[in-house]
Amino acid sequence: MILGIDVGATWTRVVLSKESGEFVQREKFRTTADPVSSALQVAKNWDFDAVGVGSIGPLDLKAGKVVGSANAPASVFSLVDPLEKLGKPYYVANDGVAAAWGEYVYRWNSVKNLVYITFSTGIGAGAIVNGQLLLGKDGNAHEIGYLVVDLSSGFQCCGGIGYWEGLASGGHMVDAFNYMTAKWGLSPKKKPVQAADVFSMAEAGDEAAIRFLNYWLDVNAAGITDICVAYDPEVIVIGGSVALNHWQFLYDGILQRLTGHLRVREPRIEKASFGDDEVSMGAIAIVYKPPETLKDFGYPRKGPRT
Amino acid sequence: MILGIDVGATWTRVVLSKESGEFVQREKFRTTADPVSSALQVAKNWDFDAVGVGSIGPLDLKAGKVVGSANAPASVFSLVDPLEKLGKPYYVANDGVAAAWGEYVYRWNSVKNLVYITFSTGIGAGAIVNGQLLLGKDGNAHEIGYLVVDLSSGFQCCGGIGYWEGLASGGHMVDAFNYMTAKWGLSPKKKPVQAADVFSMAEAGDEAAIRFLNYWLDVNAAGITDICVAYDPEVIVIGGSVALNHWQFLYDGILQRLTGHLRVREPRIEKASFGDDEVSMGAIAIVYKPPETLKDFGYPRKGPRT
Repeated sequence: MILGIDVGATWTRVVLSKESGEFVQREKFRTTADPVSSALQVAKNWDFDAVGVGSIGPLDLKAGKVVGSANAPASVFSLVDPLEKLGKPYYVANDGVAAAWGEYVYRWNSVKNLVYITFSTGIGAGAIVNGQLLLGKDGNAHEIGYLVVDLSSGFQCCGGIGYWEGLASGGHMVDAFNYMTAKWGLSPKKKPVQAADVFSMAEAGDEAAIRFLNYWLDVNAAGITDICVAYDPEVIVIGGSVALNHWQFLYDGILQRLTGHLRVREPRIEKASFGDDEVSMGAIAIVYKPPETLKDFGYPRKGPRT
Repeated sequence: MILGIDVGATWTRVVLSKESGEFVQREKFRTTADPVSSALQVAKNWDFDAVGVGSIGPLDLKAGKVVGSANAPASVFSLVDPLEKLGKPYYVANDGVAAAWGEYVYRWNSVKNLVYITFSTGIGAGAIVNGQLLLGKDGNAHEIGYLVVDLSSGFQCCGGIGYWEGLASGGHMVDAFNYMTAKWGLSPKKKPVQAADVFSMAEAGDEAAIRFLNYWLDVNAAGITDICVAYDPEVIVIGGSVALNHWQFLYDGILQRLTGHLRVREPRIEKASFGDDEVSMGAIAIVYKPPETLKDFGYPRKGPRT
C-alpha cells in the first residue's frame, strides 16, 4: 500500500492507495505550515510501505523542500524532514510533474510522449518525452508558465515580459485584462474582480471582454504551440479549474488556432482524468513506477526509523 | 572506424573518424539530389564499420527520409535506401539533434542537460535532458525555431505568427526588419538585401537598424528563456554563422536580458566547439554512443550486403 500526499497552497490531500491506483482511504485538510507532518498525523494508523509527495513549488528537489511559495501558509518548508523519521522509502516531485506521471502511468500508458498542463491560479505542467519524465538540472524542466509568448504585449508580470502565465492564468487574468484593454483603447462596462468576471462579462456582450478572451485563446494557442515544438507530444492533457470550467470554449479555440498552423504533427488534446485527485494519483504513480530521472535527485530515499 | 555524413542544403560533408572523434579523412561536395549515395561514392575506398548521418530536415525519422526540404536540390529524398545496401549498421538524425549529441559526447560529457542552437538561415536545435536525447513522437522535439515568442508583433512567417525563426533567423531577418520598422514608423536610410546589411547599417548609425537589432536581441533572449523553462539546461551551446559572426553582440545582449529575469537557474552560454564539423562530429557521436531514444525509431538498422 502506498501513501500519497498532495501538498497544495490551500488544501493538502492524503490518500492510501493500492498500486492499481484504487484509493482505500482519503482525507484532506487546510494546508499547515508543516503539511507533510500534518499529513503523517492524519495517516498515523494507516498501513503503508512507501510514500509519494506531489507538492506546490518552487522546489529545491535535491534538498526536498519548498523554497519561496507565494500562497501557502509557510513560504519555505521541508517536505522530506518528516519523512526521514518513518524508515520507509519515499519520493518527492513537483505537483504538475507528479500529475503528468499519474496520467502517464494510470491512463495513457499506450503513449510515450505526454504533456500535462494545469490552468488554475498559475499555469503548471509536467512533460514525458520518449518515456522519460523531464526534470532538467534542477527539476524545473516544466516551468512552462514562464514561456515568453508575447513580447510585444509589453505586459510585465512574474519578473518578465509577455509570460504565458502572466497573460492567461486565473491569478493574473484581471491584471492582464486591465492592461491589454487599456492598450487597445477599450472601456469595459465594469472592472472585473476575478477571472470568472471576465468570462461572464463576455457572455453579457461586453466588447472589451470578448476581445480579451479572443486574445486569451490566441495566447493559449501560442503556449500550446511552444509545447508542441519543444516536446513533440502525442497527447496534451489539460486540467485545472480555469480550463475545466471553460472547457469547450478553450478546447475549440485552441484546435481552431492550431489546425493547419503547427509545424509538427498535431497532438490529441484531452481533458484531465482524475479531477481533484490529479496530484494524489501522481504521488501514488511515482512510487508505483518510479521515473528514472528522479534517481538523479537521490530518490527514493529512506531514513532510519526513529 | 566510423563514416560520418553531414547532409546540408548546400554542402554535404563526409568524414572518416576514429571513435575518439579524430578525423582521418574528410571531403565535401555540393549537395546532390541523392546526397547519401554521392557520399558513399566519395567514401568507396574508405574502411569503416558503421555510418552516422546528420541531415537537414524536416525528417520522417522512422522512414529515414527528408520530407519537404526548402533549399536542397531535391525536396524529398531517402537517407536510408543507399545505406541499406552496405550491410553495415547505420544511424540517422536531424542535423541540430546530431550536433547537440556531438557536443554532449565529445565536449560536455560532464553535464546531463544541454541544448544546442544554431542561428543560420533558420534556427535549429537539439536538446538533451537528464542524459536523454529528446526526439518526441516523430523526432521533432527540438523544432524551437517555431516557438511563438512575439504574438503581438503580428509578423507572419513559416505558417504562423511571431515565430522565433521568422523574426530572428538569417534567412528571414530582412523581411522581419522591413515589417517591424514600418510598424514602428521608421524609415531606414536604405533597404537591406541580406541579414549582414542590417548589422552594417546599425554600425553606420542607422536608427531603424539599431532599433531592430535591439528588438532582435529581445526576441533571441525570449527564445532562450523559452528553452530554459522548457528544458532547464546546464549549458546552452550556440553555433551557426549568424551567431558566430556577431558573437559578442549576441552573447552580451542575451546575458544582459536574462540575468535576474529567468525563473530557473541560469545556464552557461557557450560558443559551439567544432566549427564546420559540428554536424559531422554529431554523426560520429550517434554511432560511437548511440542515444537510447533512437531505438524507438528503429536505429541502428542494417540491411543485407548487396
